[in-house]
Amino acid sequence: MSVSGTLPKTMRAAVLYGPGDMCLVDDYAVPEPGPGEVIVKVAACAICGTDPHILAHGWPNHPPYGEFIFGHEYAGTIVALGPGVTELKMGDRVAVEPHKGCGLCDNCRDGFYTTCLNYGNLAKGHRHYGFTVNGGYAEYGCIYTTCVHKIPADMSFDVATLLTTAGTSLYGIRRAGGLQGGETVVVSGPGPIGLLSVALARLSGAGVIILVGTRAERLELGLKLGADITVNIRDENVVERVKALTNDYGADVVLECAGTEQSAAAAVEYTKMSGRIAFVGIHANSPNITLNARKIALGNITIAGTRAEGERSVARAMTLLNHGSIDIAPLVTHTFPLSDIHQAFETAEKRLENAIKVVVKP
Amino acid sequence: MSVSGTLPKTMRAAVLYGPGDMCLVDDYAVPEPGPGEVIVKVAACAICGTDPHILAHGWPNHPPYGEFIFGHEYAGTIVALGPGVTELKMGDRVAVEPHKGCGLCDNCRDGFYTTCLNYGNLAKGHRHYGFTVNGGYAEYGCIYTTCVHKIPADMSFDVATLLTTAGTSLYGIRRAGGLQGGETVVVSGPGPIGLLSVALARLSGAGVIILVGTRAERLELGLKLGADITVNIRDENVVERVKALTNDYGADVVLECAGTEQSAAAAVEYTKMSGRIAFVGIHANSPNITLNARKIALGNITIAGTRAEGERSVARAMTLLNHGSIDIAPLVTHTFPLSDIHQAFETAEKRLENAIKVVVKP
Amino acid sequence: MSVSGTLPKTMRAAVLYGPGDMCLVDDYAVPEPGPGEVIVKVAACAICGTDPHILAHGWPNHPPYGEFIFGHEYAGTIVALGPGVTELKMGDRVAVEPHKGCGLCDNCRDGFYTTCLNYGNLAKGHRHYGFTVNGGYAEYGCIYTTCVHKIPADMSFDVATLLTTAGTSLYGIRRAGGLQGGETVVVSGPGPIGLLSVALARLSGAGVIILVGTRAERLELGLKLGADITVNIRDENVVERVKALTNDYGADVVLECAGTEQSAAAAVEYTKMSGRIAFVGIHANSPNITLNARKIALGNITIAGTRAEGERSVARAMTLLNHGSIDIAPLVTHTFPLSDIHQAFETAEKRLENAIKVVVKP
Amino acid sequence: MSVSGTLPKTMRAAVLYGPGDMCLVDDYAVPEPGPGEVIVKVAACAICGTDPHILAHGWPNHPPYGEFIFGHEYAGTIVALGPGVTELKMGDRVAVEPHKGCGLCDNCRDGFYTTCLNYGNLAKGHRHYGFTVNGGYAEYGCIYTTCVHKIPADMSFDVATLLTTAGTSLYGIRRAGGLQGGETVVVSGPGPIGLLSVALARLSGAGVIILVGTRAERLELGLKLGADITVNIRDENVVERVKALTNDYGADVVLECAGTEQSAAAAVEYTKMSGRIAFVGIHANSPNITLNARKIALGNITIAGTRAEGERSVARAMTLLNHGSIDIAPLVTHTFPLSDIHQAFETAEKRLENAIKVVVKP
Repeated sequence: MSVSGTLPKTMRAAVLYGPGDMCLVDDYAVPEPGPGEVIVKVAACAICGTDPHILAHGWPNHPPYGEFIFGHEYAGTIVALGPGVTELKMGDRVAVEPHKGCGLCDNCRDGFYTTCLNYGNLAKGHRHYGFTVNGGYAEYGCIYTTCVHKIPADMSFDVATLLTTAGTSLYGIRRAGGLQGGETVVVSGPGPIGLLSVALARLSGAGVIILVGTRAERLELGLKLGADITVNIRDENVVERVKALTNDYGADVVLECAGTEQSAAAAVEYTKMSGRIAFVGIHANSPNITLNARKIALGNITIAGTRAEGERSVARAMTLLNHGSIDIAPLVTHTFPLSDIHQAFETAEKRLENAIKVVVKP
Repeated sequence: MSVSGTLPKTMRAAVLYGPGDMCLVDDYAVPEPGPGEVIVKVAACAICGTDPHILAHGWPNHPPYGEFIFGHEYAGTIVALGPGVTELKMGDRVAVEPHKGCGLCDNCRDGFYTTCLNYGNLAKGHRHYGFTVNGGYAEYGCIYTTCVHKIPADMSFDVATLLTTAGTSLYGIRRAGGLQGGETVVVSGPGPIGLLSVALARLSGAGVIILVGTRAERLELGLKLGADITVNIRDENVVERVKALTNDYGADVVLECAGTEQSAAAAVEYTKMSGRIAFVGIHANSPNITLNARKIALGNITIAGTRAEGERSVARAMTLLNHGSIDIAPLVTHTFPLSDIHQAFETAEKRLENAIKVVVKP
Repeated sequence: MSVSGTLPKTMRAAVLYGPGDMCLVDDYAVPEPGPGEVIVKVAACAICGTDPHILAHGWPNHPPYGEFIFGHEYAGTIVALGPGVTELKMGDRVAVEPHKGCGLCDNCRDGFYTTCLNYGNLAKGHRHYGFTVNGGYAEYGCIYTTCVHKIPADMSFDVATLLTTAGTSLYGIRRAGGLQGGETVVVSGPGPIGLLSVALARLSGAGVIILVGTRAERLELGLKLGADITVNIRDENVVERVKALTNDYGADVVLECAGTEQSAAAAVEYTKMSGRIAFVGIHANSPNITLNARKIALGNITIAGTRAEGERSVARAMTLLNHGSIDIAPLVTHTFPLSDIHQAFETAEKRLENAIKVVVKP
Repeated sequence: MSVSGTLPKTMRAAVLYGPGDMCLVDDYAVPEPGPGEVIVKVAACAICGTDPHILAHGWPNHPPYGEFIFGHEYAGTIVALGPGVTELKMGDRVAVEPHKGCGLCDNCRDGFYTTCLNYGNLAKGHRHYGFTVNGGYAEYGCIYTTCVHKIPADMSFDVATLLTTAGTSLYGIRRAGGLQGGETVVVSGPGPIGLLSVALARLSGAGVIILVGTRAERLELGLKLGADITVNIRDENVVERVKALTNDYGADVVLECAGTEQSAAAAVEYTKMSGRIAFVGIHANSPNITLNARKIALGNITIAGTRAEGERSVARAMTLLNHGSIDIAPLVTHTFPLSDIHQAFETAEKRLENAIKVVVKP
């Protein structure tokens, strides 16, 4: 039996009507939770780097234009429980993650639900909130309980919107084989994923953390989040610098978060023999990149792709951040009301005023 | 070619003459370093829980009584380099670890040098400093470079003597399968290994850390080292308490550092289904313990023995501690000059004045 | 929409009416498949070692006496498909496995569905066929698709009933850390799990396989299934013999399938330093066993409990057996019609006529 | 103390005098074994794909021209033992592997001796036989005991020369994360490494094995070595074919043994989501290759470089082959006396008469 307080019939939402065509409406039907689902009153929804891409191009298997609400990094309060939900209760403050696997396929059964083999197949139970089903740029979101995490009392909703990204960062560390205590880690690319990778590598037992990028102010922020050394590739040869910092051996682990050929190719060069690289950034704009395969083979190097916040990494990242003393709040540089979502997107896309993470508040 | 400053011919040392018969001598020959070896001027040597056992009973393959200097947790300064040594230089401040594998056997080649299959075989190159060859209760110690680690400038020699123990603690975490970020960890037994396990679990990404023991003052110290919750088994049913703290599921990981049947048997009961236990403490006094094998099998539980500071854990622990903000200095509760080594042993064995770690200073 | 041929309304089934009270009835209602479920016309159902225990004592959360059909190692033909089933089709020849996790809990999401944290909770979707819901000692069984596997055309239904057991054997190998090619493996206990462990270790890359037991005819069968050497503990000291066979080092991997204290305790002694043991047998009769914890700790030995056919091991074992050249059919020593189920149980329990695996055919 | 029979003072050897300049000499001094070394009377030495490269270009840190004997895949009989050698005895029939790590560096201590951080540093104890120190194109070879493996009585020396290559193939499987029983494996490139990868994947628990290449006769040989299906990329679109064979999911594991961009790039496309690829072939001619990084990241795909026969894979492969029923002898297609080494090289390089592996017999 489902439980809910008195919810309105309709809500304000940002709806995609076609490529590049996002409109605010006030009369979108408030969703009703099915079995295992809950309704979250959205307090904050962060703009992911993928969102401008969805706005411009849609996404495979997206809901029909005219009905499609995207946004997948949101946080808020439970206001309704679908039939059978016992894991959460009314009033719980929560953050969400977007991937729900089908639970049936080989990958889901092996724990790899972010690479569910029934991706986009609603009939089999797969959901990718904000991609193949509706998400959080609205007053209310409907989502399956496995995607919902109670947040600590002292965590703000704005910070909670960072947890999906933090989960991706932590998953990158796992995909790189985890960290043996004290290993030297390079994080390349100080965007939100990279900066959170610095924080989570610090909390996961890294030794020296070297942050590589181009923007001085982001590199400085990285020092506050746990990096020991920064390398600005506009000023320095990163391969030489990392080697100089590591007795000429190279780094034990590289978290490639820039998603560029330059970053990935350099990583292969400055990784230690038998070292490990995770591709945490998505090579969206230029998928085909050229790497030194000879070095990969002769260097016994591992490269592990990282598909989103897999293997329960959002919950793990939340617990880690809750027990550590690193403040990630400065990553949220801008907030806008939902009514200003177009300005929010412009701020995020163009990185206006050095924007890092922009949050929309319905 | 070897390098050395002007060393004296003889030195003060605590020599074992027979079971229970340790004497200070002033005319023990200062060792000369062979290929790959260095001489450390010992600044501090901590008493390990195994040392009173060695004092009373010797050790398999120990050097002849009358020549045997034990003590294996020491730190000091490099004062001579054997032929071929380039990894270290004169004056380096260092800490040591006691195990040097033969490098030839299958286990050494797999990285398991603390379980070298040529244990005690000097001809094959195995060394166990302070056990099968001489150690550190003396003014000078001779040791292979792979067992020697440069310490940070701001680390005291007293603290550096803790690194072998810290390496064991960290190895326990590795043997337990490492920590997925945020996992709930129980540390049972707040001796030196247990207390350092708390610190290293915190630095390795634990979530909630529960410290279990019997002595209030040690449990309190555990809170300072990173524990969140303490359980005094004199006051509480530890199985019930851990279950109550973990939604009735049990702990993800248990680091069993007490080395008692009670502790090990309880761990099996309060470990989560599919959880992992490391036996970090040595069950020296009562090797045969009774466990619930049905729970192990049906619970899909893993128990991993932990042989000392394996798989380069001393170096890793040192780096981790150097990057963290946990102060382990309070573990060294007492220091004595080498001339008072008998009093030092009595203090350590009987835990006089709440002694935790007792350090001897030649 | 569900699909089915014309099924009868009622069926013959062996129903548990109380402890020790199993009766054949002819008017049990044929089940109807729910979403994601199928109906299997049972061709054969093997008696598991747990079944006599269930017959005598029931099982936690079992269906009400008077309705409870047990039996969980069955094979047959798909005769009806519940709504949404696309993975299987009418007429498919299949084998089943008994565990279906809830898919929601942390363990299920990590891939550990045999240790689902919602065990026995039907509302959360957990099913343990033949234990907490009905199984296969009947003409028809209803079961979730994730528990059903298409079998090769040349595999008989009798052999197919062995796949759940084979899955457990293979899971034991996985729980022991898998096999590095050529490792020496001891299998202790030549019951069905042990004999299939021999076959699957051979197919998974074992080197020397040593089978340990007490019954000469079973040890001989083990040689046909892939063992190289047998040790009869009635004639030989197994610890000494295994050491003699392994250069005095001990075995790399031990699959403990006997479920006795003697077997487990000996395994600890004859395992190599840094070796791995899986407890594959359930220590049902004497859960509390005494082990040498000192050897476990100082030997860096791992013991991994094995909960049933976890982590998709049934499908994996089927594929392995299908590609190998080992004939496991001789394990099925006896078959009985469902009407003779009491005699079948007596044969299995008392191992009459050297029974190994007894199969009931509805 | 060293042990030897009466060895001649000089021997026949193929000596490199400069790039492309290999000469047979009859008066090369027979080596004397140092501590831990043995002398092998070479019975057979196979030509590795790297050897023509060494002939043409030398190798970093190679012995001086005029003294340099290469060849690293050899087998023969022990005829002298250096001081301290107890692992082998006079008359043992053995095969060798070329990498001896320093045993001191972090990688060696972690078990990664093929990526020793002291590569080429003789003073630190590193040896790469046939590369940085002398090898086996001679009547006698001197080599460290850890690189020497006793072969089974029924294994010919010709077959024994394949073990280094077999070790590389097996290491590729390990680097790919090992095989879960029954996984679908693609082997791309039916050269010696690829064909042995087929055999070792079969012996390590693969399910369906798909062999991809261009030469019909080699693909046919692959079927005899354990492949189930072959794909000739001259006739078929390999990406489409592999997908069609795998329910459109792609392969679980790919062993890329061709060392070409085409092969590597296609592998990324036909690997399953969350699947694993090992780069076993060396991308020698075109180190920089272009891959679909977007697929790697979004597909959660792992690529693991494979540096030679690491982590004791030669010994493991020998044991596996010894327990299996796959005959690898057909891989040795040609043998030549040492006096015809130039013809042997021409046959190998140009693959005359469909040469696969060419063996030289001193």
